[in-house]
Amino acid sequence: MSDTKIHTVTIVGAGLVGSLLSIYLVRRGYKVTMYERRPDMRQFSISAGKSINLALSDRGWKGLEGVGIAEDIRKVAIPMYGRMMHGTNGALTFQPYGEKNQAIYAASRGLLNCEMMNLAEKNGVKIFFNHRCTHIDLDHARAKFELHETGKETIVESDLVFGADGAFSAARLQMQVATDRFEYSQHYIDHSYKELLIPAGPSGTFLMEKNALHIWPRGGYMLIALPNLDGSFTCTLFLPVSGKESFHAIQNDQDCRDFFTRVFPDTFHLMPDLLHDFFANPTGSLVTIKCFPWCYKQKLALIGDAAHAIIPFYGQGMNCGFEDCTVLDGIMDEMKDDWSKILPAYQAARKENADAIAQLAYENFIEMRDKVGDPSFLLRKKIEAHIHRKHPTKWLPLYSQVTFSNIPYSLALKNGYNQDRIMDRIMEVRGIESKWDSKEVEDMILSQI
Amino acid sequence: MSDTKIHTVTIVGAGLVGSLLSIYLVRRGYKVTMYERRPDMRQFSISAGKSINLALSDRGWKGLEGVGIAEDIRKVAIPMYGRMMHGTNGALTFQPYGEKNQAIYAASRGLLNCEMMNLAEKNGVKIFFNHRCTHIDLDHARAKFELHETGKETIVESDLVFGADGAFSAARLQMQVATDRFEYSQHYIDHSYKELLIPAGPSGTFLMEKNALHIWPRGGYMLIALPNLDGSFTCTLFLPVSGKESFHAIQNDQDCRDFFTRVFPDTFHLMPDLLHDFFANPTGSLVTIKCFPWCYKQKLALIGDAAHAIIPFYGQGMNCGFEDCTVLDGIMDEMKDDWSKILPAYQAARKENADAIAQLAYENFIEMRDKVGDPSFLLRKKIEAHIHRKHPTKWLPLYSQVTFSNIPYSLALKNGYNQDRIMDRIMEVRGIESKWDSKEVEDMILSQI
Repeated sequence: MSDTKIHTVTIVGAGLVGSLLSIYLVRRGYKVTMYERRPDMRQFSISAGKSINLALSDRGWKGLEGVGIAEDIRKVAIPMYGRMMHGTNGALTFQPYGEKNQAIYAASRGLLNCEMMNLAEKNGVKIFFNHRCTHIDLDHARAKFELHETGKETIVESDLVFGADGAFSAARLQMQVATDRFEYSQHYIDHSYKELLIPAGPSGTFLMEKNALHIWPRGGYMLIALPNLDGSFTCTLFLPVSGKESFHAIQNDQDCRDFFTRVFPDTFHLMPDLLHDFFANPTGSLVTIKCFPWCYKQKLALIGDAAHAIIPFYGQGMNCGFEDCTVLDGIMDEMKDDWSKILPAYQAARKENADAIAQLAYENFIEMRDKVGDPSFLLRKKIEAHIHRKHPTKWLPLYSQVTFSNIPYSLALKNGYNQDRIMDRIMEVRGIESKWDSKEVEDMILSQI
Repeated sequence: MSDTKIHTVTIVGAGLVGSLLSIYLVRRGYKVTMYERRPDMRQFSISAGKSINLALSDRGWKGLEGVGIAEDIRKVAIPMYGRMMHGTNGALTFQPYGEKNQAIYAASRGLLNCEMMNLAEKNGVKIFFNHRCTHIDLDHARAKFELHETGKETIVESDLVFGADGAFSAARLQMQVATDRFEYSQHYIDHSYKELLIPAGPSGTFLMEKNALHIWPRGGYMLIALPNLDGSFTCTLFLPVSGKESFHAIQNDQDCRDFFTRVFPDTFHLMPDLLHDFFANPTGSLVTIKCFPWCYKQKLALIGDAAHAIIPFYGQGMNCGFEDCTVLDGIMDEMKDDWSKILPAYQAARKENADAIAQLAYENFIEMRDKVGDPSFLLRKKIEAHIHRKHPTKWLPLYSQVTFSNIPYSLALKNGYNQDRIMDRIMEVRGIESKWDSKEVEDMILSQI
């Protein structure tokens, strides 16, 4: 066997990214085995009331298209054409995400994961569940797993290990503790989150607009809701951990009732189980993880959240992980089977883009929380959309670059900063409110691009 | 036993900070046991050619004074009254660190550590060597150690565990993997280091000025040398890991000889074993570690490098760790035995100061590397020293605040920024070179303080 070739691959983690990666690899003829810490979700329901609904966008679809399951998934995904903002007074404002037919798609994490595991197995991937990775001998790509039921340890040898085991990756921990000069940071934002539910109305009707991502922006915190196929909405409350308005400040039913009726009055009556759910569901933390390198020799590579966990506010966590897979797939084409080149090229291609989407996600958190209710912000978005419609090749709004294109995230971030500088000047134009769609404003923008 | 009281303490790590802490604690009547990963350095020489010599300054002395061993150590420490800069042409420039009698003191890490372990044992601390910490059950302050020779595991129960186990702390790792919302980062600078030696001259004579810290600043890299009691100097080369002038670029004897004769010509003939030492001694990495919180309930606390490893360019790593001990000691006085208050107060008092010295160390790295050879920089320091002499209460140079005072690091950092702004303006005064000690310049400075 040549030094630069591999035949057998171990994937740690059978989540969304691990499963997709396994399909890409097995189709190229690699022998792929996947080890998952949790039980098989196709047999056991493991909902912990802790999920944030997924929104599939272009990069995610591209990943699914590459293995031919995009159409199946599209049938069970709900297009959301824009943000529906809920004011404190109950007023609704709809802001399209892109052009008329552009949408992000609400999808069930569980369903998507199950579909991909089925497809992986159909293609020959072997999956072991209840196997927790406890150690990786990096120099020998030798992974140790502990079997949940018995505590028995198994050692798995292969040519290459992929760590697709999420934000708290055991594979990455080995990089941290066993290699020199490993850059690493984990940073939590002040906000945590909690899953809540707006159930379906009679006969599975949707009690709010179905084809939108609902947001209740409230400055220091916010609530969002995404539609489910059964007519319900999965809601996520993002709230500071401590402080005046915080999870810490809501200690009992009365606190919870007061808070919701005061700041989300139009949702309170839509959530009959609010008080139960609020205290029964866990409060989840929101972490950004950055590290480098992502690879150790030709023996270990990190992918998805294991390499670059981000906060969920651009809806790009899974989409970015899927793009890791399609980019890696393209590099495998280019470099043939030479893994001494594939892995360095993969991390070089992805690291700056992962850093960029982490930054964008953070900035979008601020935007969703503080600005989407702001008239000046809405006008700004309207001007951008107007210029984009008239000059689609010259002005693509940042949100569209991230969501409806495959432009590298790092380039989108840069373009976004340039657009921001232009729009800052435009918004200072006297009387912009009345002449936002004038030729004068249009020419000003075009001259600055 | 009250919830807020503790009786038994386990310290992980018998290095400088762990040993000093053990003495402070045992003298207050706590039962203290210390576990060290390495063998007993009093019986086995464990020099790995990887040490950076210590420079004790005021905060370090204060720590030693608190347990009564400062005078013993002072006898075996060598005062360094300033920096001796070596130009490429061999020219020497001496720059005092502070006032006439102010010095930092070169001391042997090994000797200092041995003395403190002796004192700890004399006071009743029990020390176990060859015990590597493999796990801590945080909620029960239950630490697991693996004995080096046999691999046998011991579980140690106590009321409180201190992690004093350095930059790659096993105790901190437990905080990282087992607690929610733990902030953590490890960041390596581009430079690594290597220990080298200038041996003593005939009959133990010093071949360079004894009472100075020698620096060969060269822009992108530097060499430093600190005196030892036997007439030798321990040198440390700080050099980028890769690039044109780097560790990577020095692959063989010829490369090494060429590099030293070109950039450190006056040292080459002073280092007869240079070629051997360069390739035999390991290349060490330089990491900054930040984390928060430093404590878990009343069960675990981090101290010294385990909580805040910094790069060595302000000579404050050990001094800061010793200050952790004296500050904690003061808080114990204040809070009596109420550990529910002691630990939160300790981390609140130290975190911002640890962050500040990390920042100062980084800035001093830039200063030592790039500026200490620069005439404008030397003039600036001369003006500061002049103003300080005339107005000692109004102007204390940043270096003195950090080194010759117990002003909190965070305050020193802030003062330093203010002084920098003033000095930036002064250095722009036309003809400052000739009138640096004029009444006009003095008044300008005083008016801005």
